[in-house]
Amino acid sequence: MKILVLNGPNLNLLGVREPEVYGRQTLGDIERRLRDRADELGVALDFRQSNLEGELVTWVQEARGCVDAILLNAAAYTHTSVALRDAITASEVPTIEVHLSNVHAREGFRQRSRLAGVCVGVIGGFGIYSYVLGLEACMNVIAQRKEG
Amino acid sequence: MKILVLNGPNLNLLGVREPEVYGRQTLGDIERRLRDRADELGVALDFRQSNLEGELVTWVQEARGCVDAILLNAAAYTHTSVALRDAITASEVPTIEVHLSNVHAREGFRQRSRLAGVCVGVIGGFGIYSYVLGLEACMNVIAQRKEG
Amino acid sequence: MKILVLNGPNLNLLGVREPEVYGRQTLGDIERRLRDRADELGVALDFRQSNLEGELVTWVQEARGCVDAILLNAAAYTHTSVALRDAITASEVPTIEVHLSNVHAREGFRQRSRLAGVCVGVIGGFGIYSYVLGLEACMNVIAQRKEG
Amino acid sequence: MKILVLNGPNLNLLGVREPEVYGRQTLGDIERRLRDRADELGVALDFRQSNLEGELVTWVQEARGCVDAILLNAAAYTHTSVALRDAITASEVPTIEVHLSNVHAREGFRQRSRLAGVCVGVIGGFGIYSYVLGLEACMNVIAQRKEG
Amino acid sequence: MKILVLNGPNLNLLGVREPEVYGRQTLGDIERRLRDRADELGVALDFRQSNLEGELVTWVQEARGCVDAILLNAAAYTHTSVALRDAITASEVPTIEVHLSNVHAREGFRQRSRLAGVCVGVIGGFGIYSYVLGLEACMNVIAQRKEG
Amino acid sequence: MKILVLNGPNLNLLGVREPEVYGRQTLGDIERRLRDRADELGVALDFRQSNLEGELVTWVQEARGCVDAILLNAAAYTHTSVALRDAITASEVPTIEVHLSNVHAREGFRQRSRLAGVCVGVIGGFGIYSYVLGLEACMNVIAQRKEG
Amino acid sequence: MKILVLNGPNLNLLGVREPEVYGRQTLGDIERRLRDRADELGVALDFRQSNLEGELVTWVQEARGCVDAILLNAAAYTHTSVALRDAITASEVPTIEVHLSNVHAREGFRQRSRLAGVCVGVIGGFGIYSYVLGLEACMNVIAQRKEG
Amino acid sequence: MKILVLNGPNLNLLGVREPEVYGRQTLGDIERRLRDRADELGVALDFRQSNLEGELVTWVQEARGCVDAILLNAAAYTHTSVALRDAITASEVPTIEVHLSNVHAREGFRQRSRLAGVCVGVIGGFGIYSYVLGLEACMNVIAQRKEG
Amino acid sequence: MKILVLNGPNLNLLGVREPEVYGRQTLGDIERRLRDRADELGVALDFRQSNLEGELVTWVQEARGCVDAILLNAAAYTHTSVALRDAITASEVPTIEVHLSNVHAREGFRQRSRLAGVCVGVIGGFGIYSYVLGLEACMNVIAQRKEG
Amino acid sequence: MKILVLNGPNLNLLGVREPEVYGRQTLGDIERRLRDRADELGVALDFRQSNLEGELVTWVQEARGCVDAILLNAAAYTHTSVALRDAITASEVPTIEVHLSNVHAREGFRQRSRLAGVCVGVIGGFGIYSYVLGLEACMNVIAQRKEG
Amino acid sequence: MKILVLNGPNLNLLGVREPEVYGRQTLGDIERRLRDRADELGVALDFRQSNLEGELVTWVQEARGCVDAILLNAAAYTHTSVALRDAITASEVPTIEVHLSNVHAREGFRQRSRLAGVCVGVIGGFGIYSYVLGLEACMNVIAQRKEG
Amino acid sequence: MKILVLNGPNLNLLGVREPEVYGRQTLGDIERRLRDRADELGVALDFRQSNLEGELVTWVQEARGCVDAILLNAAAYTHTSVALRDAITASEVPTIEVHLSNVHAREGFRQRSRLAGVCVGVIGGFGIYSYVLGLEACMNVIAQRKEG
Repeated sequence: MKILVLNGPNLNLLGVREPEVYGRQTLGDIERRLRDRADELGVALDFRQSNLEGELVTWVQEARGCVDAILLNAAAYTHTSVALRDAITASEVPTIEVHLSNVHAREGFRQRSRLAGVCVGVIGGFGIYSYVLGLEACMNVIAQRKEG
Repeated sequence: MKILVLNGPNLNLLGVREPEVYGRQTLGDIERRLRDRADELGVALDFRQSNLEGELVTWVQEARGCVDAILLNAAAYTHTSVALRDAITASEVPTIEVHLSNVHAREGFRQRSRLAGVCVGVIGGFGIYSYVLGLEACMNVIAQRKEG
Repeated sequence: MKILVLNGPNLNLLGVREPEVYGRQTLGDIERRLRDRADELGVALDFRQSNLEGELVTWVQEARGCVDAILLNAAAYTHTSVALRDAITASEVPTIEVHLSNVHAREGFRQRSRLAGVCVGVIGGFGIYSYVLGLEACMNVIAQRKEG
Repeated sequence: MKILVLNGPNLNLLGVREPEVYGRQTLGDIERRLRDRADELGVALDFRQSNLEGELVTWVQEARGCVDAILLNAAAYTHTSVALRDAITASEVPTIEVHLSNVHAREGFRQRSRLAGVCVGVIGGFGIYSYVLGLEACMNVIAQRKEG
Repeated sequence: MKILVLNGPNLNLLGVREPEVYGRQTLGDIERRLRDRADELGVALDFRQSNLEGELVTWVQEARGCVDAILLNAAAYTHTSVALRDAITASEVPTIEVHLSNVHAREGFRQRSRLAGVCVGVIGGFGIYSYVLGLEACMNVIAQRKEG
Repeated sequence: MKILVLNGPNLNLLGVREPEVYGRQTLGDIERRLRDRADELGVALDFRQSNLEGELVTWVQEARGCVDAILLNAAAYTHTSVALRDAITASEVPTIEVHLSNVHAREGFRQRSRLAGVCVGVIGGFGIYSYVLGLEACMNVIAQRKEG
Repeated sequence: MKILVLNGPNLNLLGVREPEVYGRQTLGDIERRLRDRADELGVALDFRQSNLEGELVTWVQEARGCVDAILLNAAAYTHTSVALRDAITASEVPTIEVHLSNVHAREGFRQRSRLAGVCVGVIGGFGIYSYVLGLEACMNVIAQRKEG
Repeated sequence: MKILVLNGPNLNLLGVREPEVYGRQTLGDIERRLRDRADELGVALDFRQSNLEGELVTWVQEARGCVDAILLNAAAYTHTSVALRDAITASEVPTIEVHLSNVHAREGFRQRSRLAGVCVGVIGGFGIYSYVLGLEACMNVIAQRKEG
Repeated sequence: MKILVLNGPNLNLLGVREPEVYGRQTLGDIERRLRDRADELGVALDFRQSNLEGELVTWVQEARGCVDAILLNAAAYTHTSVALRDAITASEVPTIEVHLSNVHAREGFRQRSRLAGVCVGVIGGFGIYSYVLGLEACMNVIAQRKEG
Repeated sequence: MKILVLNGPNLNLLGVREPEVYGRQTLGDIERRLRDRADELGVALDFRQSNLEGELVTWVQEARGCVDAILLNAAAYTHTSVALRDAITASEVPTIEVHLSNVHAREGFRQRSRLAGVCVGVIGGFGIYSYVLGLEACMNVIAQRKEG
Repeated sequence: MKILVLNGPNLNLLGVREPEVYGRQTLGDIERRLRDRADELGVALDFRQSNLEGELVTWVQEARGCVDAILLNAAAYTHTSVALRDAITASEVPTIEVHLSNVHAREGFRQRSRLAGVCVGVIGGFGIYSYVLGLEACMNVIAQRKEG
Repeated sequence: MKILVLNGPNLNLLGVREPEVYGRQTLGDIERRLRDRADELGVALDFRQSNLEGELVTWVQEARGCVDAILLNAAAYTHTSVALRDAITASEVPTIEVHLSNVHAREGFRQRSRLAGVCVGVIGGFGIYSYVLGLEACMNVIAQRKEG
């Protein structure tokens, strides 16, 4: 069982930028925390980050038939990328959208998600813990698909 | 430690109505599943449902100073109630918005939440499991507030 | 065979308020006129009014499996209530929306109905006679559902 | 006493097109059903159909002073024709708008009526029976105008 | 020298309908008044009315190369007809839009003209006298084109 | 002479919630201050609060013919309630809308009032003193109606 | 009999600026042409120009009871000035809006007039001749008011 | 095998009007070019033009069961006609929308097509050659329907 | 202690224009009534009116450091003037917006205030008495600022 | 003579994803079909696909002066990319936009093309055959440019 | 060589109002700094400020043929004044729009400029230094016009 | 001291494409001109161009802590890229947005900048000289930050 964790633009700066907002934990810290939990759950993680919309599209495509779920924090591309939306549909891999911050308490343009409508669900506002909840949600979705 | 779980209008019909959409589990099943998990976590639950906007407002108000977090599925009132929004702000209790379905894949008017902007975060699209994730998120938020 | 007739907020003032607009007939007069016609048709009526959105929601829910059709004048809630919309869907009882006045000749916000999209049909503009037409329409819908 | 029944574009295809949606009854069937009821009520019917906006405008104009009410299913022109709107106002004949389908459950552009604001009222969603209800409504409106 | 005067839908009812608004003068009265002034000016008039959008389109087309100016009261089609707009452009005849009433003091949808952008100018709000002013304006435009 | 003072949702928390914003005075303090002034003016007060939209609707209805003016702080329902709007119209009691805060300096959705258009006037932004000004305004309106 | 001719901002530059668009005639030429026609008609003209919105407001106010009609080319203030709109209403002098160019063929913001709704009518697109037509229209309006 | 080629308002002026834009070829030239290609392909053409929306509606209706495809250049009615849209749906004949010009490079209102959503596809911007491509597309669609 | 009372465009016509709407009291009457009350309260009034937006801006600027509060009825400029908004912010004098009429019951464009967001509060709908209430509100605001 | 065929994001998955929608033919099949036709026409093809917006921009730039036409299916970037729009303008190579599906029958956001306004024309809705038509259209455009 | 520097409403308060936002430098300081730089560049400055929209319009008009460039900080009128826009066009003097603050980081209504579309360019966000950059830009524009 | 100069998509074609619009100077010419001025000012330049949104994001990120200011002409991405916006915020390097053309005089979608709100300021409309002004502005911003 394998889960692809994709991180969009600027998430590589986590922990460095605006630590009073995003905290002092880095993307490496998130990866470690997720890997610990993944080991407990017996699931393999493929953890990646890119600033390129097209590279994220390619990774989602390649997940087709290879991974059981995608945990996706598309960051800024959440609000603008029709290409990622189409990739999620084309990959036929159940995808869960996560956000560190509560987008509903920010600028108006962050309240439209181009992706959420083709994802299984959305989790946002819990900082790094959004990823942990997202991992649990992936496991639940995979289990349900096996049953159903 | 105590968490208030509030369910809005029509959730009392769960399991009966459109079972092909919402599944065959009832609100009682959700309550049982949450109570089992709450027992493990050592947290008390107060689990309620109302079809009345004003009653939900009152319950949120009464939570002030009495519960550690609110897990809120306001259902239809999510999209229309400024009164619930004001109650959440006034209660000063950290609140987490949950949805059974993925509102982003439904009618346009369900994609605006009057409440999310004053909640800690949002979880939706995972059916009954959205509540379980919401309970975990409550515990995380409570822990963080104690630390921070 | 049974039909639930629901009246929303302020309809209890009928006949008293603005008689030059709404005429001098009261909600009691409407009820009597409908009961006379219902007796002829051999159908039982359950006739109610409430100013509370949530109480109307509950009554629509309770109709599930108990009544053959709902004749609904939700008045002001027609234009704002997602909760009533969800209740109609959940109850699975064929529902007919009626209005005393012609909403299309009034303020702009009265021209959007939150409910009509999940009702069987809409009748409006004929004063008290809208209810009589609505009752006939209910009988027709019930007959068609039995056939079809 | 005389009622003009006007049918707009494409209604001449009724019963042939999409019978699973509109049923197998033709415009001729509607006419027969209305004539039967009109005979009982002692009212003459003038029943017409046109695909031409301007011809419908002319027929509404000619009704001025000659018929007691107009039963109007303007079909597609309901949503676009200011000319028909002006004709209804100019004719000073009480007009009732009817629809076979429930326009509120269809495309967004079908939810705006250019005509309803100058009609007495609207009835829609009951298939062929919308016309029967419309005929009853015409009789009621004529009776009220005589009294009032 | 020849001017085509075109009148759109419902203008044939002038003088009969709502005389308190539009006055008691008929379209025939307008024609007579314009012909008197045209005789003084030594210009021939072709005066027509139609309820059919397509017929008005055809008349505008036929004016190409045959008349020196068009005086156009398209009535309701002013606000909806792209076809008339294209016909005016194609005819290459200078066209002047006139209105009896002041459209700016009426419903919002009457304040958008589909035609004015391709006309020479617009005159409205002076009742029958709008036509007389329009005729003078036609003469002025023709004179200027001859000079320029 | 009698004035009904109605307070909408969450106003019962006044003085407790966000005291740095709303001050430390409670709804009881407002009531006492208004009663003192009412005694001076020789007018009886009926002072109430509810979180239920429908209960507020009922209270406004019951005021019909019994009170001389309504002083209404509908709080969140100001921005969403068509039902309260209709109740004010139906009650035929002159109503004055008051707000503690300056709604024009807050979120966009607070700048639309569903009620103000059917009230006599609006007073807002002066904290508790908005109520005192509102009481004076009620007296003035009552006096004028007696004269006029 | 007296007519006030008001010219708004930048009209003092007429004839100098963009002569290929506005022609080579100056505001003085317009005044002379209007005075010639006014002499024939036996009416006095008061002809003014200002770049100040407030000065135009004052002149419209002062016209109250002193002039029989206002011929108003408010230029840019046509599209933005509520103050001029209120002044026209308050003056109770019949006012006619004129434009040199056809505003419907220009930028979108020039197609909304703040003033037209409270004027008698609008004439635009005929260059200097718009003023001459406007003067004739003034005479016609004055004559009608005397009759009516 | 038979294809109906329908041309909407003002296309009869082709070759005469604005030759620098639309070229010097007439509608007759288009017909000849299409007939040559149709002969090669062994398909019969029925080639018509009308300025009347309702006549186009009737022709689309009559195509039902009689022609294999419709090649439709509805010109101005593309952007306004719900009646044509309904006719295309009712006829159940595969329809292809063509345009001479590239509507996306013109006025904003030409960028909304009322018809495209119920057509098989759209071809535009290639002048007369749009029709030739449209004819090829018709043949392809017919072939696919026979296979599929 | 000193209060500046500013009156915007057209208020100088009060009592003369539309007396059935605005009453027969003039701006002089308002001034007298306010001065009487000001004398009782021991506060000096500076009472002015201008039709010029820029003059009002200058007066608001000059109030800086010289007056304790501004009572502002900007009339038409309320809805359009960003310059007055900036002047209020720059002057740092607490400002109260008043209106004679209830703007919420009038045209849509009167329901947006450019100024209210930077004022202390708003009072409107009570005719001349709006000014009296505004004066009391000024006193209250001044008192609070001294305390706080 | 050379034509560049550019394919945007996710088109590399063609034939694999949702075969019931997009058919079982792959991008390789499209390439083969186009090459066969290109050989007949004696034109060279350069056939590429990329998921990267910027890479597509670069390819369009490089076409400048090197290819005779571009056949462009920009897929998702059609609806969002101003960069591609600018590249098409800068390259000065005639470009034809093609789509496999009929975008007008899909989600609203797919009905806006950022590119069509600077292309020669658009072809869409014919599946793989859209490319064949596009190739013919390229040949026609090249021929016309040589002539013209 | 001469440059007109125009300052709109409230800029006379610079240095006094909100010094933490706008700094402590006054409009006099700006003038001195610009004059120093102008002396170096050998260009004369005409430096003015007005709160009156119409006075600014007049000054822009008078610049016609007298100055080589206008450096314009229209402040609040930037966002509302069509009159200033028309004056800039009419004056035919190259005009550069400057702002002290970054209007894109402020209220939404400050992000629309009525003037920028008819200016040469825009510079904003650099405090007083925006004026210095604007002066350099004026020199560059003048130099280019002389060359070109 | 070091300044990063970033150029977005299609700027590499400068001097070649549309020389009548953008002039004949290439991006290399801009670089040379900026380097000359930078040498005078004693500041190092890092000058880059990319067509890839993600590469620009990465370069902005890498500037964090390494350069003193960013001079950014994001070209088409100015109007669409939330990712660049977030990168600018995260980098904490003062950034100045420049444009060659005056975007306010072009298509509507070019008038919204996704970036300007998080930049220090904006300079546009002066061709290549916009970059020179931008470099001066960078120096000024750096100097102020050192002082402040």
